[in-house]
Amino acid sequence: MTLIKFIEIMAILVGAFSGFIEARRKRMDLVGVFTVAFITAFGGGTMRDLLLDKRPLFWVTHQEYAILIFVLALVASPLIRTLRQIVSERLIVIADAIGLGLFTIAGVASALAHGMPLFIASMMGVITGIFGGVLRDIVCNEVPMVFRDGRPYAICAFLGSWMFIGMRLYGIDYDTALWTSAFFITALRLISWKFGMRVPASGP
Amino acid sequence: MTLIKFIEIMAILVGAFSGFIEARRKRMDLVGVFTVAFITAFGGGTMRDLLLDKRPLFWVTHQEYAILIFVLALVASPLIRTLRQIVSERLIVIADAIGLGLFTIAGVASALAHGMPLFIASMMGVITGIFGGVLRDIVCNEVPMVFRDGRPYAICAFLGSWMFIGMRLYGIDYDTALWTSAFFITALRLISWKFGMRVPASGP
Amino acid sequence: MTLIKFIEIMAILVGAFSGFIEARRKRMDLVGVFTVAFITAFGGGTMRDLLLDKRPLFWVTHQEYAILIFVLALVASPLIRTLRQIVSERLIVIADAIGLGLFTIAGVASALAHGMPLFIASMMGVITGIFGGVLRDIVCNEVPMVFRDGRPYAICAFLGSWMFIGMRLYGIDYDTALWTSAFFITALRLISWKFGMRVPASGP
Repeated sequence: MTLIKFIEIMAILVGAFSGFIEARRKRMDLVGVFTVAFITAFGGGTMRDLLLDKRPLFWVTHQEYAILIFVLALVASPLIRTLRQIVSERLIVIADAIGLGLFTIAGVASALAHGMPLFIASMMGVITGIFGGVLRDIVCNEVPMVFRDGRPYAICAFLGSWMFIGMRLYGIDYDTALWTSAFFITALRLISWKFGMRVPASGP
Repeated sequence: MTLIKFIEIMAILVGAFSGFIEARRKRMDLVGVFTVAFITAFGGGTMRDLLLDKRPLFWVTHQEYAILIFVLALVASPLIRTLRQIVSERLIVIADAIGLGLFTIAGVASALAHGMPLFIASMMGVITGIFGGVLRDIVCNEVPMVFRDGRPYAICAFLGSWMFIGMRLYGIDYDTALWTSAFFITALRLISWKFGMRVPASGP
Repeated sequence: MTLIKFIEIMAILVGAFSGFIEARRKRMDLVGVFTVAFITAFGGGTMRDLLLDKRPLFWVTHQEYAILIFVLALVASPLIRTLRQIVSERLIVIADAIGLGLFTIAGVASALAHGMPLFIASMMGVITGIFGGVLRDIVCNEVPMVFRDGRPYAICAFLGSWMFIGMRLYGIDYDTALWTSAFFITALRLISWKFGMRVPASGP
């Protein structure tokens, strides 16, 4: 299995896992657990492709991921408590940061390939990176966490998107630009987390 | 009027009616009543067609249904209380179960016709069957009922979708497969309702 | 700068401003403020274009508007309180009414140009006019104001849409029809506001 495939699967699992936890907090049944996990894992990329009118959707051509989440939902529901003990908070944050980096850059790259203007391309990157969680929170009837917790998350994705755009404009090859920017996002997210940096709030 | 046309209209009316009741519970005005009824009746099929990139949408080519809901919203608002006395709980559940069966199979069939992989096709069937109610609850600022009430609903749609897929794979003709699977979903929903069967919850 | 360009920008600014205020009420951070402002300003037209399958989206081909909202979000957050003192309630209502008229007619016109049936075209007009606010309220975890406040808003858009459709059917030229109907919507909204007219509620 290639590295990117491994990271891709891990990123999807992390998204699904955060969906499991949120669905369980809301006392959802099996159907809710699967749906919320699926939306969290694929919502960002789906939103981007709907806006760009790109088809078929990623999860449509890779049904193995949908099946994977389906099977996990069947086994996870009773195991969530145990899972949360095995999987430490730190591990979740790290895996999520890797997913944020990877999905964001995949989003920018896809938008540039569709000839989007640069600022829109950076927005598509951020949307790909964060909208899974946004849709998860909307379905769970919460104000999206990423809009209110004041921790740098979307901002890391935004800065990394511009790093990728800049590197491409300067003729740096695709793979180098992808891996450097994705790593930058992940590192920035983890550093800002470790040092408890804050995004300015809209004040009282 | 053909049987399928009659069922189609009845299914749409049931969706609209559940939208009326929810909108009224939220003290919405006429605009909200129409919109929520419309979303409940057509949200599932619209969501499926957005994901499949199928156009024009059903309700766009059949504006008579939109007009029907519009007229009903005008007359229904003041009559809801009376309507709820005329229309028994049991009648609503039966009609809704018929709609669930019909819409779900229509969704799977449409997805298969678009060459979707089998698991995705079954998901499209469920989405068509349940997402009207999901969007209704999101607009009404509730956690979607179908994700938390623990009653078999989406699961009936899921099993029926696979019944249709299986019958088609075994070369059974379209109409037989459609009616058998739709009836199966409706029956399963009504039986599980009558005996109070439960979907496993995600636990405490 | 042409008149229509000026009105367009003003309408977008008004949408963004109402997004700022709502995001701030929810104590959102900078990311939430930008996203909610953006959704409020462009959500209606985006929803219409998704339903009509029209691409590229307005804000994709005019990234200057996205950049404008981005810059405003950066400076507005700390200034909201001051802004609300400068910008009177009355001014917001007037500007919003102008935006409602313009966006609604732009929506009907676009739907007619896509060969939509008349009733659907009028719905697309209303969706374009009001769904920015609807999506804003959903993201902010509120029941959409336009569905429950009982003030004529969507109804003004609906009547104006039919005025435009009627004028076009009677062969009145595009520009005359556009400006007359847009003005009609704006005037109707302001008059109904001034005299506190009510939309029938769905009752107790």
